[in-house]
Amino acid sequence: MTSVILKVTCQDKKGLIAAVSGFISQNRGNIITLDEFVDKASNTFFMRIEWDIQDFSIAREKIAPAVAHVFASGGFGGKWELVFSDTKPRMAIFASRFDHCLWDLLLRHKAGELRCDIPVVISNHEDLLPVAEFFGVPYHVVPKTSENKFQAERKEFEILEDYQIDFVVMARYMQVLSEDFLSRYENRVINIHHSFLPAFEGAKPYHQAFERGVKIIGATAHFATVNLDKGPIIHQATLPISHQDTVDDLITKGRDIEKRVLSDGVKLYIANRVFVHGHRTIIL
Amino acid sequence: MTSVILKVTCQDKKGLIAAVSGFISQNRGNIITLDEFVDKASNTFFMRIEWDIQDFSIAREKIAPAVAHVFASGGFGGKWELVFSDTKPRMAIFASRFDHCLWDLLLRHKAGELRCDIPVVISNHEDLLPVAEFFGVPYHVVPKTSENKFQAERKEFEILEDYQIDFVVMARYMQVLSEDFLSRYENRVINIHHSFLPAFEGAKPYHQAFERGVKIIGATAHFATVNLDKGPIIHQATLPISHQDTVDDLITKGRDIEKRVLSDGVKLYIANRVFVHGHRTIIL
Amino acid sequence: MTSVILKVTCQDKKGLIAAVSGFISQNRGNIITLDEFVDKASNTFFMRIEWDIQDFSIAREKIAPAVAHVFASGGFGGKWELVFSDTKPRMAIFASRFDHCLWDLLLRHKAGELRCDIPVVISNHEDLLPVAEFFGVPYHVVPKTSENKFQAERKEFEILEDYQIDFVVMARYMQVLSEDFLSRYENRVINIHHSFLPAFEGAKPYHQAFERGVKIIGATAHFATVNLDKGPIIHQATLPISHQDTVDDLITKGRDIEKRVLSDGVKLYIANRVFVHGHRTIIL
Amino acid sequence: MTSVILKVTCQDKKGLIAAVSGFISQNRGNIITLDEFVDKASNTFFMRIEWDIQDFSIAREKIAPAVAHVFASGGFGGKWELVFSDTKPRMAIFASRFDHCLWDLLLRHKAGELRCDIPVVISNHEDLLPVAEFFGVPYHVVPKTSENKFQAERKEFEILEDYQIDFVVMARYMQVLSEDFLSRYENRVINIHHSFLPAFEGAKPYHQAFERGVKIIGATAHFATVNLDKGPIIHQATLPISHQDTVDDLITKGRDIEKRVLSDGVKLYIANRVFVHGHRTIIL
Repeated sequence: MTSVILKVTCQDKKGLIAAVSGFISQNRGNIITLDEFVDKASNTFFMRIEWDIQDFSIAREKIAPAVAHVFASGGFGGKWELVFSDTKPRMAIFASRFDHCLWDLLLRHKAGELRCDIPVVISNHEDLLPVAEFFGVPYHVVPKTSENKFQAERKEFEILEDYQIDFVVMARYMQVLSEDFLSRYENRVINIHHSFLPAFEGAKPYHQAFERGVKIIGATAHFATVNLDKGPIIHQATLPISHQDTVDDLITKGRDIEKRVLSDGVKLYIANRVFVHGHRTIIL
Repeated sequence: MTSVILKVTCQDKKGLIAAVSGFISQNRGNIITLDEFVDKASNTFFMRIEWDIQDFSIAREKIAPAVAHVFASGGFGGKWELVFSDTKPRMAIFASRFDHCLWDLLLRHKAGELRCDIPVVISNHEDLLPVAEFFGVPYHVVPKTSENKFQAERKEFEILEDYQIDFVVMARYMQVLSEDFLSRYENRVINIHHSFLPAFEGAKPYHQAFERGVKIIGATAHFATVNLDKGPIIHQATLPISHQDTVDDLITKGRDIEKRVLSDGVKLYIANRVFVHGHRTIIL
Repeated sequence: MTSVILKVTCQDKKGLIAAVSGFISQNRGNIITLDEFVDKASNTFFMRIEWDIQDFSIAREKIAPAVAHVFASGGFGGKWELVFSDTKPRMAIFASRFDHCLWDLLLRHKAGELRCDIPVVISNHEDLLPVAEFFGVPYHVVPKTSENKFQAERKEFEILEDYQIDFVVMARYMQVLSEDFLSRYENRVINIHHSFLPAFEGAKPYHQAFERGVKIIGATAHFATVNLDKGPIIHQATLPISHQDTVDDLITKGRDIEKRVLSDGVKLYIANRVFVHGHRTIIL
Repeated sequence: MTSVILKVTCQDKKGLIAAVSGFISQNRGNIITLDEFVDKASNTFFMRIEWDIQDFSIAREKIAPAVAHVFASGGFGGKWELVFSDTKPRMAIFASRFDHCLWDLLLRHKAGELRCDIPVVISNHEDLLPVAEFFGVPYHVVPKTSENKFQAERKEFEILEDYQIDFVVMARYMQVLSEDFLSRYENRVINIHHSFLPAFEGAKPYHQAFERGVKIIGATAHFATVNLDKGPIIHQATLPISHQDTVDDLITKGRDIEKRVLSDGVKLYIANRVFVHGHRTIIL
């Protein structure tokens, strides 16, 4: 079954659901799922609607113009995006030396959990080459220092373009991406922070958590932005801990939750369920 | 703001969402939320759609006939139900001697969490009268024995009718309702079972849990049916326990989860989010 | 069964467990539970040991001198404390207008979950008088303004002394206690903060959480200290939320977790399981 | 630091903690942790005590006889076991075609989370050879049919003896072990069942869960016994699900919890924290 997903963000205005569902129905499409949300403070309407196009009377390449026509004639404004279910997004993984998130993503991909392609892993170290090799994924080493950052990122852009990458996942990648990088891939770089943000922003959150004596730890999957650890949050989870846990115990327990939260966040993104609204996300 | 909720259960057929949303839009209604689900095994479509009727061009009492017309002309079949947001369902609480679920329901109601009226508490014991009194809720004692069950239920029916009750919540009510009772209030009697069903059906589930040596306990809110503890499940949750917990500890810890699961189940029901489909529920 | 609990905090030194358990055994005591922990960074030893004194050969009033002798002859130093299981600590509840934590504490107390006496509720408002009255607990109103704070606290001290209060629980009490107050009741004032500290310190944490767009909310029971929201954390828990939750929804959902976390924290304190170590707690 | 762990199961009798801790102290051992539990119904005492033997005045090989002397002279009876922290238990993994639990165990072992040796993987299929190879673990294929079960198990015994295996972990191994096998490795075979037992014993628990319409799924790590799915439970956890989850979704979500529950159960076993008491476990 091939289907198409329409993602809509616009001012809330009567008639949009009717217009879109009428358009689908008149052209013999069958709606599979429809999720919507209205943010009242900003009067913004978000919708994710998916329909089966097997019997759809509009040819695939003409669906976008037809949708444009629906929006124009209804005066709905806003922005929208069409994604066909048989085109998989292409994801690049950035990693450094910690391997748990990389393993988790590649194993879930192999198990069929992640509906995307993973054509490349980029790292500033050689350490994780064997992991990528096991899954037959090309592994590019782009070393980074404070001096060569600009050139290194140029190298990374080349790789990302060669592999026609749609979005980037930082699997405990230990380098800060530049403003230039993040603006090229706006809301398309997913990072995992090893704390329940906004607590323990910055470096060594497990050490901070230990020092503060908290009874829970957590992890946060968010879009990377120039303001470190302040990007829109996609997913979060926590885990109970106790006074018996050393910093090393927190790091060990944290690996479990980091990888799950990151993979769950990536799944939501791949399913076209994540809408960024200011510094928040709407998950439909 | 007054709104109306339309609940639909029918065969999955193209065009229903378009027909309904078109109807709403043409009459100047504004859709507030739309949730739907298709059960593929049975090809059944479920929808809960709510719209603002402030500017709706159809008078309140004519909405039902108009919706009937939409269904008839579209040939959608199935069944549907309209609920206006300003009519609160009327809930009767059945209780025995355990007070925690009763307190929880009445306190949440007082705090504005439960959008329903609670005009009466019925019990087979006098014990909980002071609780109902505190909240100014009439409390009727209907003693029950194996001999007088038939008469007792007749008495209960009278009370339920006097108070124009829409649905019943068994807040750890320790009597089994008859087939006659349950058929009169089909899918309108919510019970709480103090285990994660289907584990530990029947009596004394905490004793059973202790004996089996499980590491979790739980609670299940479900519709009461003739097959005890087999009714459609609305909500469930669990709690970790350890070898240190005695049966009494399980009972104490269990109270916490019983009352929460029951109240959460009741909230879903009141919000018109629960659809019964065979022996399962769809929660939209 | 009457038992005694010995709480020990001292430098870690060989032989302490042997000395104490030998002392108990030689005097025909039966150890019921023994929990200990060594904080390696500071080389501090914490122990909570409870023994049955039914057949104990040392009279009740002579146990403390005898324990002192064990510590002196062993050269163990540090500090220790004896608590008899048949003496219940006396807890004062401070409340303002939010009633959920007050209800929760009083209902759990009535159900036998909290092994303490609750001789008094103090509030800066009259609103919650009916709640205290229902449970037959005296309710004292001590209004507070920025001007009368000093006098108001003197009044509170009198009440606390009249009722021979051992510790104070701030059940969403909306006033800051003075340094004088907190030093008189050091590590004996338990507060609930409605966020997963250290995130969202200060006022209106649910508003802060909504603004930040987090996907979890939480609550923190901690000892009140002069540094607001920075006291040693006793217990924490979190709850998943979504973009659909308004600030009001967060407040509603948060009540559930606030009251549970506070009551769980109070239970640990009453069970003599909480040891304060710098700005952290050890829970034995 | 080398330490020794003493595990004790005996009738509850005054003086045992004093005797053991006195013995340790007199011989200049330093207690690291002490955990105990009394099962009142059966008056059974369980203890796990670990002490540093760096300065211990008794030579390593003479500790067991010395402990035996302590027990004999105290008349404590029961059974006890000594484990030195520098001897790692040797674990064999049995697997079939599902790879997630195998990956999880091997990755955690590589990350240093599992303090054991994994000298061999045994499978009835060739499929998972590459996984074992990646970690350099020998992989033996022992095909099994209902006809050759006896001979196959003899082959397995040989392998287990060749590799001097201490305990076996069934990582979604799809064959039932014989009574003979289980009696040779009594309470030394850990299995993972993909439901929150005792719900959904037997085959296809996710299909059963889907049919019943539960709102949670779970996993159970337990010792394998002749009564399938009835062995002593070591660890359990659950996960919320909804009507939207198909059986395939349950299988996917279940993998996550199965592997975590199994690895957590294995960690507890390796840490010598699991005591079997009838058909229950005590986790110290």
